[in-house]
Amino acid sequence: MRIYVAQLNPVVGDIDGNTQKILHCLSEARKQKAEIVLFAEMTICGYAPDDLLLHRTFIDSMEQHLEKIVRYSKDLMVFVGLVRRNLLLEGEKNLYNSCAVIKNGRLLGFYDKWLLPNYDVFEEMRYFEPGEELGVWEYKGKKIGVIICEDIWQHAGYVEFTRYSRDPILALADVGIDLLLNLSASPYQFQKSDKRVNVCSKAAKTLQCPVILCCQVGGNGQLLFDGYSVYVNAKGELERLGKGFEEECMLIDLEAKSSARTYKYDPLQDVYQALLMGVRDYFTKHGFTKACLGLSGGIDSALVAKIAVDALGAKNVCALKMPSMYSSKEGLEDADQLVQNLQIECHTIPIQSPFDSYQQLLAPYFEGKKEDVTEENLQARIRGMILMAFSNKLGYIVLSTGNKSEGALGYSTLYGDMCGGLSVLGDVKKTLVYDLARWINQKEVVIPKRIIDKPPSAELSIDQKDSDHLPDYEVIDNVLEGYVEDYLTMNEIAVKYQISLEIVMDLIQRIHKAEYKRRQGPPNLRVSKKSFGVGRRYPIVQNWL
Amino acid sequence: MRIYVAQLNPVVGDIDGNTQKILHCLSEARKQKAEIVLFAEMTICGYAPDDLLLHRTFIDSMEQHLEKIVRYSKDLMVFVGLVRRNLLLEGEKNLYNSCAVIKNGRLLGFYDKWLLPNYDVFEEMRYFEPGEELGVWEYKGKKIGVIICEDIWQHAGYVEFTRYSRDPILALADVGIDLLLNLSASPYQFQKSDKRVNVCSKAAKTLQCPVILCCQVGGNGQLLFDGYSVYVNAKGELERLGKGFEEECMLIDLEAKSSARTYKYDPLQDVYQALLMGVRDYFTKHGFTKACLGLSGGIDSALVAKIAVDALGAKNVCALKMPSMYSSKEGLEDADQLVQNLQIECHTIPIQSPFDSYQQLLAPYFEGKKEDVTEENLQARIRGMILMAFSNKLGYIVLSTGNKSEGALGYSTLYGDMCGGLSVLGDVKKTLVYDLARWINQKEVVIPKRIIDKPPSAELSIDQKDSDHLPDYEVIDNVLEGYVEDYLTMNEIAVKYQISLEIVMDLIQRIHKAEYKRRQGPPNLRVSKKSFGVGRRYPIVQNWL
Repeated sequence: MRIYVAQLNPVVGDIDGNTQKILHCLSEARKQKAEIVLFAEMTICGYAPDDLLLHRTFIDSMEQHLEKIVRYSKDLMVFVGLVRRNLLLEGEKNLYNSCAVIKNGRLLGFYDKWLLPNYDVFEEMRYFEPGEELGVWEYKGKKIGVIICEDIWQHAGYVEFTRYSRDPILALADVGIDLLLNLSASPYQFQKSDKRVNVCSKAAKTLQCPVILCCQVGGNGQLLFDGYSVYVNAKGELERLGKGFEEECMLIDLEAKSSARTYKYDPLQDVYQALLMGVRDYFTKHGFTKACLGLSGGIDSALVAKIAVDALGAKNVCALKMPSMYSSKEGLEDADQLVQNLQIECHTIPIQSPFDSYQQLLAPYFEGKKEDVTEENLQARIRGMILMAFSNKLGYIVLSTGNKSEGALGYSTLYGDMCGGLSVLGDVKKTLVYDLARWINQKEVVIPKRIIDKPPSAELSIDQKDSDHLPDYEVIDNVLEGYVEDYLTMNEIAVKYQISLEIVMDLIQRIHKAEYKRRQGPPNLRVSKKSFGVGRRYPIVQNWL
Repeated sequence: MRIYVAQLNPVVGDIDGNTQKILHCLSEARKQKAEIVLFAEMTICGYAPDDLLLHRTFIDSMEQHLEKIVRYSKDLMVFVGLVRRNLLLEGEKNLYNSCAVIKNGRLLGFYDKWLLPNYDVFEEMRYFEPGEELGVWEYKGKKIGVIICEDIWQHAGYVEFTRYSRDPILALADVGIDLLLNLSASPYQFQKSDKRVNVCSKAAKTLQCPVILCCQVGGNGQLLFDGYSVYVNAKGELERLGKGFEEECMLIDLEAKSSARTYKYDPLQDVYQALLMGVRDYFTKHGFTKACLGLSGGIDSALVAKIAVDALGAKNVCALKMPSMYSSKEGLEDADQLVQNLQIECHTIPIQSPFDSYQQLLAPYFEGKKEDVTEENLQARIRGMILMAFSNKLGYIVLSTGNKSEGALGYSTLYGDMCGGLSVLGDVKKTLVYDLARWINQKEVVIPKRIIDKPPSAELSIDQKDSDHLPDYEVIDNVLEGYVEDYLTMNEIAVKYQISLEIVMDLIQRIHKAEYKRRQGPPNLRVSKKSFGVGRRYPIVQNWL
């Protein structure tokens, strides 16, 4: 059996454009003499459409485009993900997260997803009714089982937030199938890619048949999909892995001689690719080409500049150096060196003059008050305003350069360095920022060594260092991992990471207190198990701890 | 039977503080010789705690505080809302949205909510397993049925987003009960309060017994709870309505002579009270006292100033006039008149000097480019920065003054007039802003007449009027109602409101395009059926329409 696995990068809501891509794949599949074509979950509308699903015409449009796909399916059996109406009005919700099964110009039916994730970034119970029927179709005497994404995970033991009472894998095992197809839109997560192979492998062993899992790829807002579609044989061995972070159509011949392979997983390369893809898709799917950012001479903006160059091309990246009286000579030199290494446009705009005019305007009202965070924020906000003026006048999108550790503690200026269309590192902890910088420099020194070596500083007051206000980033990042990502208790964190309970408590309080700032920050590219923003909801006004 | 209905304003997450309030009510109830005490949904933790529920110690703490309440329940039967663990690990989720039933020092058991809303602002399926058992308890030979909030709505025909397969009212009718208690946290919605009475009335008629519904009151972030607890008799007639927008403990004697009353519903007064309460609770629950805002001489900032004064007291409100070369003489006079009417502190800080210094800095890069939105945004952002400096240095919370119609279309400056801790009118359409201003002036002219009469303008360029860029606000607000609140199709909107399809289409596209701005705006106080922000999720990057 020859199966064409279409790992595509759909645009959310672009039903017409996504359908064009699907039709193109059908042509290609025919040319390559494929028999079966497999797409990912919700390929017709892109994952995740969120409340677009509440508009009737949105669902109508998917229905109409499905007809086109059916008409175009000559000589093929096609499995394509979409959303369809719950026409019998059974159960609570009006829609199904579904797979249309098409054969040679006929719509044979649908498989509706059984297990609907409703935790973290997933809100499928907001829209969908769980399916009730098994998805098994015959093709040339073989039985093909179909499931969608979450359906396969619990069977391999992943039950972090939900215990489902049904297991579609076991139900299919009862029936007996010859091949399992899974349509997925499973977001990238630092150090998760190999898990997906294990999950397929477990299902293959239970079912004693090959498993092919087709993944969505691409960045859709904060959610990043890494691709890496999976084909494991009946013994659960990896036969083929789709490319990471780009579209790929793979032709899989089930009868071809097996050559089980292993997959070398490089977590730093993956997270870098994920960020790069996130920036690229945010721009291309919006129709933007050019980015600007503030270069401080620090490590965060250096890393963002490098990512932007790789994602958009050096000629589309403009850096602004905006020195104040507190900017160090070394920082400015380091920024210059970086600009030279990256070959990007850079302008220097000193911020002293607007700073002075604010000071003058405000002096009568601030008389007798000491300098404090107000003056620091003024500087950060002047820089934000200059970047936004470049954006407004010249069409750049501002990239925000703050990292997750800062964002966690609110060590950043709202409407200042938090300005921007996209926060590239908003889900990257400071220690990972360093790891990435070193990883980049392994091939070629792009980020000047001094940027990596010097102690981090916001340079908003005299001789300021991050360490004046914060514990070591190792400590912060451990607490972030324990509290935000793993929901450990304070005591568990203190014991696990050997940090005093006072520091743990203080950091956790700061995390909650900064919720109001994060709520107004730009969207992060989600790369961790638990990102701020999408998938994490905390009240701004609350009094726990 | 004497029932003490405790309509309280809990702080989200403040398990200790809320428990103190509960204990105080038990004392009061005993003094007043009540037999039964009824609290609202999740009174122990406040509604809605969101992902605080994912922390084990948060649930532990509720358990510990429940024990205190049990020990304090001498001579009383108590129904109190909380979250409890799903100890048998039945079903998919680990928690129940529950009511603890306590009698004279003993915990009799729990009723777990059957119908879990998972639409709009509700995400109960993210956390909770639906209950399976009916809640019926005996008291002095009478059978008391207990349900929680959503459990009662579908029975009266409210099924906008979900059709539940079970109806707790019918199930209770099968058993037969003598009194129904409902623990609610049902958010305020413009023109909804009377619906809640109808819903109770319908249940009373089906059950042929009195219904008492105890509501949470108060502002918790964006969600506003109006109180208005309900007591209807067995015929479904309204006997008593709790106060709107404030705490109230009502003693209800079921044997007292009936005197069915009608309730005069004033929607403008209610929405005004809701906004006032929202501001007040946002400040008091955060521990803030003072607000500042920019006064432009326009109607939005005038209304916000009046609300702030009523919520926080005139002495806690500071207004800043920040004129530019485009500010009209009339606008500044109107602002002065308003300041005098409200008796608030006001300072004038002209923005020309920072504006000039930005212009100078940017001139080399903007050479040959025409003036455009960049210069308008610069002005708005300078004002935002000055307000934020006041906030940072002097401890004011900035109130953002934009309305829902502007926010819908992105007719506002990110990091400019969108700055602030709270957007007071972010869910108030422009036409409602006018209605409220006129309603306020009915008693006494607070908002100068000229502010209401003149055509709206942002005054960011010469002789600018909102109508240069936007259709009439009546048209915008109709499209907002049709599209955002009621999910009508474009054709339906065009027909219903007699607006050309082109204008409808253009406005809808603008609504989607402005998603990225709204995502970075301050939280709105939710007063409509569908607010931007909480309860509405749309992708920033999408290509529908």
